[in-house]
Amino acid sequence: MDLMKKSIEMHGQHKGKMEIVSKVPLKDTYDLSLAYSPGVAAPCLAIQQDPSTVYDYTMKGNLVAVVTDGTAVLGLGDIGPEAALPVMEGKALLLKRFSNVDAVPICLNTKDVDEIVQTVKLIAPTFGAINLEDISAPRCFEIEERLRNECNIPVFHDDQHGTAIVVGAGLLNAMKLVGKKMDHMKIVINGAGAAGIAILRILLHLGFNNVVICDTKGIIYSGRPTGMNPMKDKIAHLTNPENLQGSLSDALIGADVFIGVSVANLLTKEHIQSMKSDSIVFALANPNPEITYENAKAWGVRVIGTGRSDYPNQVNNMLAFPGIFRGALDVRATAINEEMKLAAVEAIASLVSDEELSEDFIIPKSMDERVAQVVAKAVGKTAIQTGVSILYKQSLNSELVI
Amino acid sequence: MDLMKKSIEMHGQHKGKMEIVSKVPLKDTYDLSLAYSPGVAAPCLAIQQDPSTVYDYTMKGNLVAVVTDGTAVLGLGDIGPEAALPVMEGKALLLKRFSNVDAVPICLNTKDVDEIVQTVKLIAPTFGAINLEDISAPRCFEIEERLRNECNIPVFHDDQHGTAIVVGAGLLNAMKLVGKKMDHMKIVINGAGAAGIAILRILLHLGFNNVVICDTKGIIYSGRPTGMNPMKDKIAHLTNPENLQGSLSDALIGADVFIGVSVANLLTKEHIQSMKSDSIVFALANPNPEITYENAKAWGVRVIGTGRSDYPNQVNNMLAFPGIFRGALDVRATAINEEMKLAAVEAIASLVSDEELSEDFIIPKSMDERVAQVVAKAVGKTAIQTGVSILYKQSLNSELVI
Repeated sequence: MDLMKKSIEMHGQHKGKMEIVSKVPLKDTYDLSLAYSPGVAAPCLAIQQDPSTVYDYTMKGNLVAVVTDGTAVLGLGDIGPEAALPVMEGKALLLKRFSNVDAVPICLNTKDVDEIVQTVKLIAPTFGAINLEDISAPRCFEIEERLRNECNIPVFHDDQHGTAIVVGAGLLNAMKLVGKKMDHMKIVINGAGAAGIAILRILLHLGFNNVVICDTKGIIYSGRPTGMNPMKDKIAHLTNPENLQGSLSDALIGADVFIGVSVANLLTKEHIQSMKSDSIVFALANPNPEITYENAKAWGVRVIGTGRSDYPNQVNNMLAFPGIFRGALDVRATAINEEMKLAAVEAIASLVSDEELSEDFIIPKSMDERVAQVVAKAVGKTAIQTGVSILYKQSLNSELVI
Repeated sequence: MDLMKKSIEMHGQHKGKMEIVSKVPLKDTYDLSLAYSPGVAAPCLAIQQDPSTVYDYTMKGNLVAVVTDGTAVLGLGDIGPEAALPVMEGKALLLKRFSNVDAVPICLNTKDVDEIVQTVKLIAPTFGAINLEDISAPRCFEIEERLRNECNIPVFHDDQHGTAIVVGAGLLNAMKLVGKKMDHMKIVINGAGAAGIAILRILLHLGFNNVVICDTKGIIYSGRPTGMNPMKDKIAHLTNPENLQGSLSDALIGADVFIGVSVANLLTKEHIQSMKSDSIVFALANPNPEITYENAKAWGVRVIGTGRSDYPNQVNNMLAFPGIFRGALDVRATAINEEMKLAAVEAIASLVSDEELSEDFIIPKSMDERVAQVVAKAVGKTAIQTGVSILYKQSLNSELVI
């Protein structure tokens, strides 16, 4: 494939994609005396006296660690920390390009949950936020939860929440387009890994109340005899109000929406025809979706979104994470909470106007420069409103400053 | 002090000194498909297949982690990881400016030796080398030694070796100037912390054979009843061939060279006058030296170097570390060994020509752009000759490639 050759060539030509450069001049000994010894003692002492000024005098407030253990990289799986580095640099590239966030890859030479948590906690003083990336399930859940509890900076696992937020935005717009109401809709999610569970969480928070999740053993329901674990018990409890049992095919009968984070070419014509009319499908398996755009259209799907850039309605987490980190850093948020994620969903959805909204345009384009800005503003505002902004604590009851 | 105000202002204006930027274009979806999904899979798979290609396709080969725990920052002491960040960014700035090395501060939220060693080992896959910085003695010795043994990338504690290398260069040139011979010289080092011991090590490797070290309890000698520890037992064994006992004043009688890494304004007129003629003094206490330039000159010191930029002969580790890292990275060295450090000493010394050499010019200027290049070349060449270069292993017996 020519693209792969070109990519190797480009990566080899530049030896990676990111570099670290100076924001200040250093042309003579005076510059040196300001930026380094002896002048640098001044910001050091200021920070020692008032630790919050580390955000004023250093790069910390704009710096994100992109942390991985290389266990779930793209569709490639457990390729290790070194082989994961090109993806982490890519993430840093997108953060810089779309929201001017500085990001550094940190690829860890361990898969042990305790060691990952401990390492991230110990390096946290340098960073304004942590982006967990491409860490396999179920370890990623525990790692994120523990770090969220134990760090005083935002910790965000993009593979879970980034995709979920964009699916949420797409679904809101698709629903508007087809004229269905939230509390009458049945949604089937196929895949109960990191992405599937994060999508479920967003949908429940958005107010959808009839979601059915399937895994490789079929519909997840309370008391299913095989393939359960504590997370799936919890899922069973929160989903499947009609207590359906059986296979994905059974789940799809009468469904309004299918969301796949599973395997290629899974959906048949029969599957689609068993769904309600005006069906909505997000086929997010990578690189080949659960159903092709062409088949979906031919078999009667009204709105189809995939992860592919060469078809309409690309579900791309690029629409979420740059703005989310920008917003969180701008108000010095201590966390990225559910409300901030929902704000991102609404912000992304809002960028498709009623005039533009169509079967082939429910989600803004990946390269749309407005998205990160609008998401950042919404996320920052919501951080303030929910009391997790350090910078704008006082303004809770007054006019919002951003 | 105006400089301090200016420094605060400058740090506040830019929010730190370094940023992370892209080396590749990202203007359209084609660029995106090369740098990120799906094209990025190509370098990932290449690295998975042949781990050494991580140096070809990522930023690793030019990326140094500047690691501190904030326990011995400048002359400020244990100010903590956040307050140390301006110095670490300063270090990154110098590495970029003088040798185009990318460097990222990593400030650790622990002072525990095991935790520091473990954290650095776990983050190592991202980096081409590790610079330890401002970690207090004696923990810094163990941390450096363990990391050197357990990492396959170079680990270098600049506070120890950087200063020592520049002192070594200055001493070689001063000796040439005053016309003394190495094996007739008596050298007194005052201070047995990280810097003092590193200077001792370099001097012994250079071939000086009569070095006496003093600490706060006076001359270190075998069997001294108080203030000894395993490191000082080792020092006593390696130094002080005449088995001198007593105070610094006793040590200085008949000495050719004084090297201080201790406290301000320590040396008296009597001290200086008890030394041999054509005496050489490196007074490196920071920010105020053991003796001022003016007093040294008035009391008869022939050559005086300090850490200050406003006097001649500034001993500044800036002359060493940028070139050392450049050289090590260029040949993909697995370590920075003693031979490479000695090569740096000779390279720095060589930049003062016989015509230029004078009492007030034994060391190149800190901002001399040639230094890092010449040091890098010498260090890289020596890495190849001593068999620690991965890139140029084959060339050991043939023409050197750099």
